[in-house]
Amino acid sequence: MKRVVLKQAIDHKPRADDFDLIETDTPPCPEGGVLARTVYLSLDPYVGSRLRGRHMGEAPPEPMVGAIPGAVVAQVIESQADGLTAGDWIQSMEGGWEETCAIAGEHCRKIDANVAPLSAHAGVLGMPGLTAWAGITQLAKAGEGDIVLVDAAAGPVGGTVGQIARIKGASHVVGIAGGPEKCALVENTYGFDACIDYKAHGWQDALGQALPDGLTVFFENVSADMAMLALTHAQIYARGVLCGLVDAYHTESQSQHPLNAGLIIGKRAQLSGLVVYDFYDRWSEYVAEAAPWIAAGKLNFAEDRAEGLENAPTLFERLMDGQNIGKAVVAVAAEEA
Amino acid sequence: MKRVVLKQAIDHKPRADDFDLIETDTPPCPEGGVLARTVYLSLDPYVGSRLRGRHMGEAPPEPMVGAIPGAVVAQVIESQADGLTAGDWIQSMEGGWEETCAIAGEHCRKIDANVAPLSAHAGVLGMPGLTAWAGITQLAKAGEGDIVLVDAAAGPVGGTVGQIARIKGASHVVGIAGGPEKCALVENTYGFDACIDYKAHGWQDALGQALPDGLTVFFENVSADMAMLALTHAQIYARGVLCGLVDAYHTESQSQHPLNAGLIIGKRAQLSGLVVYDFYDRWSEYVAEAAPWIAAGKLNFAEDRAEGLENAPTLFERLMDGQNIGKAVVAVAAEEA
Repeated sequence: MKRVVLKQAIDHKPRADDFDLIETDTPPCPEGGVLARTVYLSLDPYVGSRLRGRHMGEAPPEPMVGAIPGAVVAQVIESQADGLTAGDWIQSMEGGWEETCAIAGEHCRKIDANVAPLSAHAGVLGMPGLTAWAGITQLAKAGEGDIVLVDAAAGPVGGTVGQIARIKGASHVVGIAGGPEKCALVENTYGFDACIDYKAHGWQDALGQALPDGLTVFFENVSADMAMLALTHAQIYARGVLCGLVDAYHTESQSQHPLNAGLIIGKRAQLSGLVVYDFYDRWSEYVAEAAPWIAAGKLNFAEDRAEGLENAPTLFERLMDGQNIGKAVVAVAAEEA
Repeated sequence: MKRVVLKQAIDHKPRADDFDLIETDTPPCPEGGVLARTVYLSLDPYVGSRLRGRHMGEAPPEPMVGAIPGAVVAQVIESQADGLTAGDWIQSMEGGWEETCAIAGEHCRKIDANVAPLSAHAGVLGMPGLTAWAGITQLAKAGEGDIVLVDAAAGPVGGTVGQIARIKGASHVVGIAGGPEKCALVENTYGFDACIDYKAHGWQDALGQALPDGLTVFFENVSADMAMLALTHAQIYARGVLCGLVDAYHTESQSQHPLNAGLIIGKRAQLSGLVVYDFYDRWSEYVAEAAPWIAAGKLNFAEDRAEGLENAPTLFERLMDGQNIGKAVVAVAAEEA
């Protein structure tokens, strides 16, 4: 089978030529686990820092080399796991950049292939969507009349944040994204009221004009500085979710990501740190709630898709550079076996 | 009548010799307000920054000179205010460092002189107590089994925070204070499980030992750095209240008071900014709940008392230097007229 590997340990932002496509033996089915054919491989920003041993999370903090972890939507070929049989569809955060994955049973979540397009389980129904739902419904508790700001709004987290906020009753949803193409996606496909292009001249003034009454909820995906910018536009008692801080994945220094305590107090703000792992046990609940929204056309998504595992490195470099428009997903194999 | 005034505009930490005691005319009773004889004058840290035009709040941000604002417990001499007559007792945040105060009716809160010692309305039932109650019950929502850390624990806010947390069911309450005398007050009078002396060698290790299971709630009175120290001892999902940041009152620079966003996210912490003004309309609710705690011996307080208005400047300097043990209050006149 084919596998994409990291050629050597790196300490820079990953580039396409850091990876190799190799042929290797298909692994055996693990005891208590499954062997599954990868259909969709999700490419996510956190993998970039995880490769460099920088990601704060479940993975040990040391640079990786060789096989690369990844979230997958896959079909079971062989199973020694309770509750799973050949032909079943699963989503797993513990797949890899390879055609056939050997995955422990506890890391497999069985999915219904009929509730939504299969690739949605890599994005809007996958970890990014769960992140958005957890932050906006469980932490910020957005509801009727909220005015919501989210950055990295063209991405699968930010785009889903704004749409779920709207579904829950938010009266005004504003995004921040980089470039006119991303902003058009946010406004036209995701249906935000406005999207501010942070690469455009005068964008900070435009942001203020897009929030004439201030915001009541913000969802921060990018950096501490952006969180503080959001706070300057906040009504008092605003709630903020601190999520990925994507910038932190890319900085070479061990920055402290400072937030201004005086501003938080002055705004009486409530800030919550979000780590999506904590909500993995509520994933099925989220999918049950969100799949009908997709079917009803209320929750839309966009993909930046690569065809074939060999194109994963190029798409990953685009993701690392923020060039992707929509969720980065690799179609590794046809849905029909 | 006697009044203490600020001799000239200052931009340093106030010292006793920045003030003068003068004789001046007793003001007339203001239309819609009262004239009241000051019995207890509360000295509070925020006045130090307000004098320098640094306090973020309702007061305009410019240095003061002349008459000095202050919270008072006073008895009405003459009234043109609805609901108040001569002989009534009031608490007001808009009194002054003077024997007779002219106060607008909307700034007078009538108090029952019998529910607790009168001077308690300057501290544990006054603005410091309301601050503690608001933060620990309305923002952090401390309850059964919580493990609570509070700094500036010998002060009227911190000491009340820990005691209310205990009353609400906290299983373990730890304070931080400066010096053995303050720590003894916190442990013996306020009944905390432990108080760590931050002036002692090895205090950070001692703090860890006092919190073997980590904390679930912290109430930050001092600085962003102390908030981050608290977070390092936090269990995940800890709730933190960001309150006065006393250090900020004294710093000469316009510091940013940085909080580490990465640590907040890693701990999934929820931080809330607290400004006590927002809870002024719930003051009577607080007093109704807390006065019985005082009567029952569950909520204790300590005072660092000066006798006579002429001693206010010296006590204020002690407060600014953190030398006071307990609430700084000036007994301006006898309770019996």
